[in-house]
Amino acid sequence: MSKVKTNAGNFFEDFAVGQVLQHATPRTITTGDVAVYNSLYGPRFAVQSSTTFAQAIGYHEAPVDDLLVFHTVFGKTVPDISLNAIANLGYAECWFLEAVYPGDTLSAASEVIGVRENSNRASGVVYVRTTGRNQSGRVVLSYVRWVMVRKRDKASPEPTAVVPKLAERVEPANLGQAVPTLDLGRYDFTLSGSPYRWRDYAAAEKIDHADGMTLEEAEHQTATRLYQNTAKVHFNLHEQAQGQFKRRLVYGGVVISLSRALSFNGLANAFHIAAINAGRHVAPCFGGDTVYAWSEVLETAEIPGRRDIGAVRARLVAVKNRACADHPLKTPAGEYAEGVILDLDLWLVLPR
Amino acid sequence: MSKVKTNAGNFFEDFAVGQVLQHATPRTITTGDVAVYNSLYGPRFAVQSSTTFAQAIGYHEAPVDDLLVFHTVFGKTVPDISLNAIANLGYAECWFLEAVYPGDTLSAASEVIGVRENSNRASGVVYVRTTGRNQSGRVVLSYVRWVMVRKRDKASPEPTAVVPKLAERVEPANLGQAVPTLDLGRYDFTLSGSPYRWRDYAAAEKIDHADGMTLEEAEHQTATRLYQNTAKVHFNLHEQAQGQFKRRLVYGGVVISLSRALSFNGLANAFHIAAINAGRHVAPCFGGDTVYAWSEVLETAEIPGRRDIGAVRARLVAVKNRACADHPLKTPAGEYAEGVILDLDLWLVLPR
Amino acid sequence: MSKVKTNAGNFFEDFAVGQVLQHATPRTITTGDVAVYNSLYGPRFAVQSSTTFAQAIGYHEAPVDDLLVFHTVFGKTVPDISLNAIANLGYAECWFLEAVYPGDTLSAASEVIGVRENSNRASGVVYVRTTGRNQSGRVVLSYVRWVMVRKRDKASPEPTAVVPKLAERVEPANLGQAVPTLDLGRYDFTLSGSPYRWRDYAAAEKIDHADGMTLEEAEHQTATRLYQNTAKVHFNLHEQAQGQFKRRLVYGGVVISLSRALSFNGLANAFHIAAINAGRHVAPCFGGDTVYAWSEVLETAEIPGRRDIGAVRARLVAVKNRACADHPLKTPAGEYAEGVILDLDLWLVLPR
Repeated sequence: MSKVKTNAGNFFEDFAVGQVLQHATPRTITTGDVAVYNSLYGPRFAVQSSTTFAQAIGYHEAPVDDLLVFHTVFGKTVPDISLNAIANLGYAECWFLEAVYPGDTLSAASEVIGVRENSNRASGVVYVRTTGRNQSGRVVLSYVRWVMVRKRDKASPEPTAVVPKLAERVEPANLGQAVPTLDLGRYDFTLSGSPYRWRDYAAAEKIDHADGMTLEEAEHQTATRLYQNTAKVHFNLHEQAQGQFKRRLVYGGVVISLSRALSFNGLANAFHIAAINAGRHVAPCFGGDTVYAWSEVLETAEIPGRRDIGAVRARLVAVKNRACADHPLKTPAGEYAEGVILDLDLWLVLPR
Repeated sequence: MSKVKTNAGNFFEDFAVGQVLQHATPRTITTGDVAVYNSLYGPRFAVQSSTTFAQAIGYHEAPVDDLLVFHTVFGKTVPDISLNAIANLGYAECWFLEAVYPGDTLSAASEVIGVRENSNRASGVVYVRTTGRNQSGRVVLSYVRWVMVRKRDKASPEPTAVVPKLAERVEPANLGQAVPTLDLGRYDFTLSGSPYRWRDYAAAEKIDHADGMTLEEAEHQTATRLYQNTAKVHFNLHEQAQGQFKRRLVYGGVVISLSRALSFNGLANAFHIAAINAGRHVAPCFGGDTVYAWSEVLETAEIPGRRDIGAVRARLVAVKNRACADHPLKTPAGEYAEGVILDLDLWLVLPR
Repeated sequence: MSKVKTNAGNFFEDFAVGQVLQHATPRTITTGDVAVYNSLYGPRFAVQSSTTFAQAIGYHEAPVDDLLVFHTVFGKTVPDISLNAIANLGYAECWFLEAVYPGDTLSAASEVIGVRENSNRASGVVYVRTTGRNQSGRVVLSYVRWVMVRKRDKASPEPTAVVPKLAERVEPANLGQAVPTLDLGRYDFTLSGSPYRWRDYAAAEKIDHADGMTLEEAEHQTATRLYQNTAKVHFNLHEQAQGQFKRRLVYGGVVISLSRALSFNGLANAFHIAAINAGRHVAPCFGGDTVYAWSEVLETAEIPGRRDIGAVRARLVAVKNRACADHPLKTPAGEYAEGVILDLDLWLVLPR
C-alpha cells in the first residue's frame, strides 16, 4: 500500500517549541509578479512604480512592493502552519531588513516559538517566527504570527504552555534597513504626488484616504494565487457554501494591500513599510464588499543614524461598505465598530 | 492643526490657460504590464506580440501596445484633471511620436489650453494638451482632451472663455514617427495573420470585426488599476449604487482597447495606431455588457517620405449587446443608434 | 468592391490530407506571461517557480510551465482549425521536446493528417498534427488533435476518409527531452514540497488532490486571452445566451491547467509533463463551477538513457462540484460519472 502523499497539514500536537520548518517552493519574483500585483491593487508610490525615480534616489532599481514580499513569504507558510487553522490571530515584530528586487528568489522558514492549548482541549494557539530570505540567504523579512490550530486528537497530551513575550512595537533603531541612503536632493515631490514629508506628520493626525474599491471574487482569488497561498477558504465556494459564511473568505492580505494602496491618497511619500507592529483582521471581508481606509498617526520617530528618512507610526484601518470621513474604529463600549475589518499598526518610512 | 493631505482634485476655477501640471507617479512599463494588458484584451498584432517578428522588420524589440502607452499617460492625469469631472467630452490631435519599449519609464504633464464656463455657472469645460515622455525626456505621445469639471463654488468669477481650435485630423506628414524604417521584405504576411496591406483598403469600406467579448467587473477594474487610473466611478460600487447608473462605469479606455483588439479580425496588419483624430464615448458601458466592433475606412494616405508604410484613417465603432454585421452607427434622425458606445477616428499604419 | 477581410475560418471541405497551415501571430513568452499564468492557477512546482531551484539542478533558468507552452501553441491554431468546430474531440501523441524559457518566441504550424466526413453530411472530423517551434526553429511541442468541423456546404463532395493510426501512448524512449541532465544531489526535496520521488509511485495508486478551486468568468476569460485563443464560445455571453448552454463555455485548457496545479498536492515532484497520451473533455465547465482533481497511476517507466529521471503515467481526472475522496470516474454502466469533466492521460517526469 502506498503512503498517502497528499499534505494534510500540521495539527496542534505536531508543533513543538524550538522546531524549525523549512517551507516549500522558493519563488523568483519577477516584473511580471509586480505587474499582476499592481493591476490588482493600483498602488502609486513612485519608488516602486518607476525605475528612474528609484535609481535617482539611490536604489539599484525599483524595489518590489513590501507587501508583495510579505504575502509571498506568508503564502509559503500556509501548508505547514495554517492549513488546519481556525483563525489567524495576529502579527507582531514584523520588519523588513533588505530591499527585494525583481529577479530575487524568496524562500521561507518558521520557528515555533510558542504553543498554548485551549481550555476546550480541541485546539491551541501556535506562535511562529517566520523568516523570508533571498537567494543569497540574506533575511529580507522577519515576523511573528500566531494562529489557532485544531488538534488532530482531543486526547493528545497538553504541552507545556509557552507564550512568547512580543514587543509592542519594533524599535526605531531597527527600521529602514531595506532603504539605501537616499539622495534626497533628487527625490522629486511633484512626481511622488505630494509635498508632505516626514516632518509634516504629527501624532493624533487622522487621514481619510477617501477612495473606496469594490472587491470581486476573481480579484482576491487571483491575488491569493499569485502568492501561492493555498488556504482553501479563499477558493472553494462549493465547500464554503456549507460553512459559517456561505461564501469564500477574502485572504486578509488582500485587505492589507488594498488599504495600503488607498493610503497613497494622504500618505504618498510613505514609500516603504518598515515594520508591522501589530495587525488584526477584525471581521471577514467577502467578494462584493467595498473597502475604504483611513489612518491615524500614532507617533513619529527619528531613525538613529539616518538623516535622510524618518519613521511615522500609523494605524491603518480598513472599513467595508462605509466611507471613512468620520474615522470609524470602536464603539463607545470599546468594541470594533460595524464595518471595520482591519486594524494594522505600521511603521512607515518617509523622506525627511 | 495639520493640513489636509488628501488630494481633493482640481475644480473648474483651479484651471487657467497656460498653466502646466506635472503629473505624479512616473511608471516603468515592463513585460509584466504587457502580459497583463494582453490577458485583458487578447490583441494579436504580430509586431507587439513577438520580439522576433518586430526585430526582423526593424524594431529594437517588440514595442509596447500604443493603447497601453495611451492609458498609462492618461491615468496619470486623472488626479489633477478629472477627479471632479462630470464627463470626459472628447479627444483630438493625439499622436504617437516614439516607440515605447519594455523598461521605458513614462511620465506625463498637461498644459491648460482652454477654459469655458457653462451657462449654469456650476461647471465648465477644461481643455488640456497632455504630453507623455519617456525616461530620456522624449515625447512619446501628445493629445488634447476636454472634460466638463465641477466648480468648487458657483459664485467664483467666470474666466475669459478660451476655446482652442483643434485640427479635424492629424496631418499625414506627422504620422509614423514611432515606426522605424521597416524592412518590408521581412514582414511575413502569413505570420501576421492577413495578406491585406495598405493598398488593399479603400475609403468607404466597412469591416465587421465579427467577434464579441463580454466584459466582467473584475476585468475592467484590473485594467484600469494597471493604468493607475483612480477615477472612483470605475471602482466603487458602494458609492455608485447611489448614483445615476446604480453601477460602476467601465473606463472608456477599456472599450477602446477591447474594440482595437477585436479589430485584428479584418485589420491584422494595421499594427500601429499613429493617431487618434477624435474620440467620443457615446454611451456608458457596464460590467456584463458584450462589446462588438466594426470599422469604416474614411480615407487612405501616403505618409510623406515613407515608402514602407501607409496610413489608413478608420472610424472604429464599438457597440454593446448587438452584433455589427449591419454596421450600426446613427439613426435616420442623426442620433447615435442604440448600443453604440464608442466612435473613434484613428490613423492606422500598415505596411505598403 | 473590397474583398471580405475578416477571417471566417476554415470549414470541413477546406481541409485536405497533407495540407500544412502556418498559423499567425508568433508570441514571445515573458516572465509577465508566467506571472499571469501563475496568478490564474496557483501552481507550486519548484522548478518552474524558482530560478535558483531550476539552475541548481541544471536548467538555464526556470522553464516556462509546460501547459502555458501547450495553450499558447494551441491558441494559434484556433483561427485556422477550430473556428467552425462543433467539438474538440481529442488529443494524442503530445510530447514536449525542448524546454521553453522566458524570452523564447513560439510559433505553430499544423499538418492535416486525416479527414472523415460524418454520415449526416453536415460535418466531418479533421485530424491535425500541430508543431510548436521556438525562435531557433526547434520543435518544442508536437501533438495530434481531432475536431468535428462544420461543412460550409452540405452538398460538397465527400473526401476519401483517412483516419490516422495514433499511438496509445508516447514511448518512454521519447520522454524527457525537454529536461536537461539533472544534478539530483542538488534537488532539494524539502523545498520541492514532498519527499516522494519516482520510485515511490506504483501503478494503481490513487491520489485525491484534495483542494477545490471555484472558477470565475473573469478568470477563464483572462486565461484564454493570455493564449490569444479567440474561440467565441469562451467570451461572448450575448451570443451564448441564445445557445445550448445559455452560458459561456470554459476553455478546456483552463480545466487542464487548474487540475494540474491542484495535483501538486500529492505529486509535488512531478515537475514536468513529458507527454499527453490522450485527453478528453468529458463534460463542459462553466463559470462558478468548483474544480477538484484526482490522479491514478497507470504505469511507471524508466526512460532509456536517463538515470536522473523516471516517468509516471497518470490519469488526471477533473471533477466539478464534488470532492474526489472516492475517485469518481465511471458509473457501473461504464459512462462517465456525473461531475467528471476531464480525463487526461499524462506522462509525468519525476526525479529518481
